[in-house]
Amino acid sequence: MSTGVQERDYLAIMKGHKTSVERRLAVLREFTEPKFVYEPIRYVLGSGGKRVRSVLVLLACEAVGGDARAALDAAVAVELLHNFTLIHDDVMDNADMRRCQPTVHKKWNRDVAILSGDELTAHAYRFLLRTESSRVNEIFAVFTDAFIQVCEGQGFDKEFERRQDITVEDYFMMINKKTARMISAATEIGALTGNGTPREVKALRRFGEHLGMAFQIKDDLLDIVGDEEKVGKTIGGDIKEGKKTFLLVKALERAKGSDRKFLRKVVPNNGMNKHALRTILDIYRRECVLDDARNEIAHRTRLAEKELAILEPGKAKSTLLWLSSRLLERNS
Amino acid sequence: MSTGVQERDYLAIMKGHKTSVERRLAVLREFTEPKFVYEPIRYVLGSGGKRVRSVLVLLACEAVGGDARAALDAAVAVELLHNFTLIHDDVMDNADMRRCQPTVHKKWNRDVAILSGDELTAHAYRFLLRTESSRVNEIFAVFTDAFIQVCEGQGFDKEFERRQDITVEDYFMMINKKTARMISAATEIGALTGNGTPREVKALRRFGEHLGMAFQIKDDLLDIVGDEEKVGKTIGGDIKEGKKTFLLVKALERAKGSDRKFLRKVVPNNGMNKHALRTILDIYRRECVLDDARNEIAHRTRLAEKELAILEPGKAKSTLLWLSSRLLERNS
Repeated sequence: MSTGVQERDYLAIMKGHKTSVERRLAVLREFTEPKFVYEPIRYVLGSGGKRVRSVLVLLACEAVGGDARAALDAAVAVELLHNFTLIHDDVMDNADMRRCQPTVHKKWNRDVAILSGDELTAHAYRFLLRTESSRVNEIFAVFTDAFIQVCEGQGFDKEFERRQDITVEDYFMMINKKTARMISAATEIGALTGNGTPREVKALRRFGEHLGMAFQIKDDLLDIVGDEEKVGKTIGGDIKEGKKTFLLVKALERAKGSDRKFLRKVVPNNGMNKHALRTILDIYRRECVLDDARNEIAHRTRLAEKELAILEPGKAKSTLLWLSSRLLERNS
Repeated sequence: MSTGVQERDYLAIMKGHKTSVERRLAVLREFTEPKFVYEPIRYVLGSGGKRVRSVLVLLACEAVGGDARAALDAAVAVELLHNFTLIHDDVMDNADMRRCQPTVHKKWNRDVAILSGDELTAHAYRFLLRTESSRVNEIFAVFTDAFIQVCEGQGFDKEFERRQDITVEDYFMMINKKTARMISAATEIGALTGNGTPREVKALRRFGEHLGMAFQIKDDLLDIVGDEEKVGKTIGGDIKEGKKTFLLVKALERAKGSDRKFLRKVVPNNGMNKHALRTILDIYRRECVLDDARNEIAHRTRLAEKELAILEPGKAKSTLLWLSSRLLERNS
């Protein structure tokens, strides 16, 4: 790359931004009562997390020539909205583990998970309100659209669990809402706080959208071939819940005979154990859907990278490109 | 009253505003997919409801000389945020009935209730974003503060269920967050959209706060002396859930001997049946806490009315006063 930036420079940039986000997030530690609400919030926000979405806000802001400090509250807002979706989705998906620790509804109960998730969205808006920008209306509109879409996406995801006729097109529509919109909102909001041109804002939104699609397909892949400790959640969790992942939808399209029967009858009826998981993996291998997923991820990543061509060269732009390439290799 | 406005005029004004709100709310009917999310939303919004909070937004706007049409989107936003709290609170409170029909989690399930509630808050913000006002930042700040407070209030309410040392002061703090803030946000937002002076905005906020406190104590009262069909939910529901109502907190302060023991031991252990309910009502009567509640409601209503003294006379002002006086007599 022409900027002469090295791997360790990217890591330093990422780390710097992550630290800024963590510091601003710490404002929430001042809230302690009621414990019913704020203990789980502290627990979730203190459980690590890569803060990818908030770092994307800051990088997108810089990529259009803005000062990342102007985007910090918006970045925290995006991070909180994301964490809200994790808490509520984990309830709906009966997930036991998240970031290598029990989920909120497992550690406390469902009521605590519902209410602390609600409170996170409220605080997300309070952070967003602190953003000083001439384009605050656009920022609010994008953020709220992401909030609407992510709930719709989760709704489709839940509906699809009970359906066996989901096409790859349906799947893409669902993950676009459920995952990609939040990531494209992160890059779009970053570009807006940096006061980017309409062309820059659009490019960064699309970059986030392609990246988000790739990100979700990678997540689907890791659910079956990932390392439990690295991923931080139970492997095969998607299959157990009847989730229509990229792999399952593709395999359902292709498999014939007993394989097809197995995917259509056994998988949706939660007959899951180590043996069944192995059978599914065998079918996935026979139908080459693991390769399909890897190809799709590579394709979407290339599309994402192309979008950034119109941006001026610079550290932030090359960090975004580096980040998207890393996605291909991530194992957690 | 000097304006010469009659009971039927008030009813006509209320009805007119309610109709405007219903019409604007109908925009949400365009959203149909995913059904998992939008069917329960239509169900809840179609289940009646008095729309008191949204009508208060419109009246407060007019009371400072504004045009109610300018406040309509904000009014709908407040209504949606309120309905979100109903759906999620009903899950946490194991409530079976609301507005004379099964609650969302009873008719569908908890996941549907969680997600459709979430989506309502997202749409609430989208409506709020449509508000055209030079004071949109203040409006957003008040709305978001109400959102934060209402979640905190619900958190305290749930914590208090397990505690027997709740004072009347604790109780007032809790209902201020849980109920009064949303109503004071309604009147404050109305005053802001009407571009009221700081003094007017403050007066209308306080009017809403006192009214909201009175409203919640009336709700507590109706839970024990109300008519199930009129109230639209199960009588004694608060007691069954171990809620610290005004009546129970007052009675716990005063009762001695076996009455005290009954309230401290039997009530929190859900040993509720018709006989136990009758015993509680007897204790409440002996300790005069029903009268206390009625006096407190009257006191708060007077405080609310006093706040409006600084406003110019007019139809909206007198409708607000009429509305607050009606609260004393409401039975649903």
